[in-house]
Amino acid sequence: MDINKGLIAIGAGLAVMTGMMTGLGEGTCAAHACDAIGKNPEVESKIRSTMILGIALSETCAIYGLLVAILLMFVYPNL
Amino acid sequence: MDINKGLIAIGAGLAVMTGMMTGLGEGTCAAHACDAIGKNPEVESKIRSTMILGIALSETCAIYGLLVAILLMFVYPNL
Amino acid sequence: MDINKGLIAIGAGLAVMTGMMTGLGEGTCAAHACDAIGKNPEVESKIRSTMILGIALSETCAIYGLLVAILLMFVYPNL
Amino acid sequence: MDINKGLIAIGAGLAVMTGMMTGLGEGTCAAHACDAIGKNPEVESKIRSTMILGIALSETCAIYGLLVAILLMFVYPNL
Amino acid sequence: MDINKGLIAIGAGLAVMTGMMTGLGEGTCAAHACDAIGKNPEVESKIRSTMILGIALSETCAIYGLLVAILLMFVYPNL
Amino acid sequence: MDINKGLIAIGAGLAVMTGMMTGLGEGTCAAHACDAIGKNPEVESKIRSTMILGIALSETCAIYGLLVAILLMFVYPNL
Amino acid sequence: MDINKGLIAIGAGLAVMTGMMTGLGEGTCAAHACDAIGKNPEVESKIRSTMILGIALSETCAIYGLLVAILLMFVYPNL
Amino acid sequence: MDINKGLIAIGAGLAVMTGMMTGLGEGTCAAHACDAIGKNPEVESKIRSTMILGIALSETCAIYGLLVAILLMFVYPNL
Amino acid sequence: MDINKGLIAIGAGLAVMTGMMTGLGEGTCAAHACDAIGKNPEVESKIRSTMILGIALSETCAIYGLLVAILLMFVYPNL
Amino acid sequence: MDINKGLIAIGAGLAVMTGMMTGLGEGTCAAHACDAIGKNPEVESKIRSTMILGIALSETCAIYGLLVAILLMFVYPNL
Amino acid sequence: MDINKGLIAIGAGLAVMTGMMTGLGEGTCAAHACDAIGKNPEVESKIRSTMILGIALSETCAIYGLLVAILLMFVYPNL
Repeated sequence: MDINKGLIAIGAGLAVMTGMMTGLGEGTCAAHACDAIGKNPEVESKIRSTMILGIALSETCAIYGLLVAILLMFVYPNL
Repeated sequence: MDINKGLIAIGAGLAVMTGMMTGLGEGTCAAHACDAIGKNPEVESKIRSTMILGIALSETCAIYGLLVAILLMFVYPNL
Repeated sequence: MDINKGLIAIGAGLAVMTGMMTGLGEGTCAAHACDAIGKNPEVESKIRSTMILGIALSETCAIYGLLVAILLMFVYPNL
Repeated sequence: MDINKGLIAIGAGLAVMTGMMTGLGEGTCAAHACDAIGKNPEVESKIRSTMILGIALSETCAIYGLLVAILLMFVYPNL
Repeated sequence: MDINKGLIAIGAGLAVMTGMMTGLGEGTCAAHACDAIGKNPEVESKIRSTMILGIALSETCAIYGLLVAILLMFVYPNL
Repeated sequence: MDINKGLIAIGAGLAVMTGMMTGLGEGTCAAHACDAIGKNPEVESKIRSTMILGIALSETCAIYGLLVAILLMFVYPNL
Repeated sequence: MDINKGLIAIGAGLAVMTGMMTGLGEGTCAAHACDAIGKNPEVESKIRSTMILGIALSETCAIYGLLVAILLMFVYPNL
Repeated sequence: MDINKGLIAIGAGLAVMTGMMTGLGEGTCAAHACDAIGKNPEVESKIRSTMILGIALSETCAIYGLLVAILLMFVYPNL
Repeated sequence: MDINKGLIAIGAGLAVMTGMMTGLGEGTCAAHACDAIGKNPEVESKIRSTMILGIALSETCAIYGLLVAILLMFVYPNL
Repeated sequence: MDINKGLIAIGAGLAVMTGMMTGLGEGTCAAHACDAIGKNPEVESKIRSTMILGIALSETCAIYGLLVAILLMFVYPNL
Repeated sequence: MDINKGLIAIGAGLAVMTGMMTGLGEGTCAAHACDAIGKNPEVESKIRSTMILGIALSETCAIYGLLVAILLMFVYPNL
């Protein structure tokens, strides 16, 4: 009985969950961008570029999780 | 007794949960788009395109989770 | 003792929980649509169609979870 | 020792928890409908029908969970 | 050693937790009804009936959980 | 080794946690009632009765959990 | 090996966590009372009594959890 | 093998987590007190005393958890 | 096999998590202080002292958790 | 049977989850920056630099988690 | 079989998760600072210094978690 493989899979599942709240954060960001464009459509391009910059920075957190998940699945078992 | 198969299934279930908050984020985004259109119906197309862009970017987080879940179910056991 | 069947059931239960927050997101979306219609009843049809579009996009997250739950219950055990 | 039955029960308990946030989403929806009616009582029927439509769409998420819970309890053990 | 009974009890405990957020949703709904009545006391009866309708619809989610908990405690063990 | 007693205790602990969010919902409800009374002290009695009605309806969710916890502790073990 | 004692302790720990959100709800209630007093200091006594009534009602949820925790620690093991 | 000591430690860890949200509730309370003082600095003393009263009442929830944690660590093992 | 040491470590990890939400509460508090200073810079010192008082009171919750974690790590094993 | 490797993987998965809420915090930050730019486009550069400073400070929390995850995967097993 | 090492790793993973919400709190703090600067750019330096003070105080919670995680990894096993 070697259940390490299964436990590592659980670890990978937990790791990728890091990106969970990023989905909410990015949705919130787009939500407020919609509000802001609705109120002041003239600066649409500035708002949209700020939105994309913010989403790109948030995305790093999801990337950390994905990275650790992939490390756990493909690198860690052969360490 | 080889419970790896079962543990990997739990890992896959956890991984796909990454998309949980994305559902909230996208709902929030659509919620604010409704608000914004109600306040300023003339810029409806701009708001709706920002909403769809934001939802598409948020969706990436759910995709990461789905990807890891599928990797865990179909690729990882045969590694 | 083969507890894989039970563990896979837990995995399926976790997977379908992905749709948990979607229920909140959609409720929030409808909540703001109610607000917006109350403030500006003339654009009711535009707001309602945006609401339904947003809910349809959010629903994808719940569908991912349901899909993985069904894969885990009916496909994965026979892999 | 066959603990599959117990583990499947846990899976079913987790699955039905999918509806947890729907209860919050629907409460939020009704909350905002109350606000909107308080502000603009003339459009009460429009607001109430939007509220019921939104709640019906949110309810689908709780139904997914209930469905998987019932599948796990009554169908999956005999698969 | 037959721990199925104990595991089913955990499943039932998880199932009834479905109603957890409903308590918050209903509290939020009553909160906004208080706000709305404070702002516009003339339409108190309309607001209160909307509040009770919304709470009744939210309650369905808590009922699903209670139902599954009772099924798990009294029906499932004898299946 | 009979750990059913311990596992049922965990189930009861989880079941009573159903009331967790009710505490938040009721606090939120009282919070908004404070706001509303501060803004419009003349209708204090109407607001307070709505608040108490809402709290009473929310309390049902906590009662469900307490009920299942008590069932699990005192009835279920002798089933 | 009798680990029931330990498992019951975990159940008691979970049960008392019921009061977790009550702490937030009461803080929120006091927060809004501060707001309301800041806006309309003349009705301070009405607001403060509503706040204390709301906190007392919320406290019931924390009491349920504490009750079950104490039942689990001191009564349930000797059942 | 007697793992009761370890399991009781986990129970104590869970019990003290009851205070988790109290930290948020108190922070929220202080946050709104800051707002209120910023808007109406003349009633600073009333607002601050309401804030401290609210925090003291919230603190009870954290105390319940700490109490059960200490009971679990120092009293329960010798029961 | 004596896994008590490991289980106590998990308990300590859970205990220190009590401070988790305090980080959010204090951030929220500082957030509103920023708002309030932006709106009314003349009372900056009053707002800042309220903020620091609130953060100090919130910090107690994190301290409870840290205290129990340290008790669990250094005192409890030798009890 | 040496399952330490698997358990450490779970620990690493949990550790990297520290960054979960940072994704939300950064998204919220960008969301409010969008709002602020929409309201007052002249100070776009000040707002954007504050946003980036805030995100950089938040990022430290995600870094702590990533650091511990990497320590757990690559350093801790050989300790 | 000595799984203490693995269990301690899980404890360390949980401990560092204390910093999770701090990331959100700091993001919220920066978010409101952006708002405040957008509304009143003249007091930018006061707002920014309040923001940095608040973030520094919040950071203490994340530090507690990191401290306990490091104690668990490097000191506790040799105790």
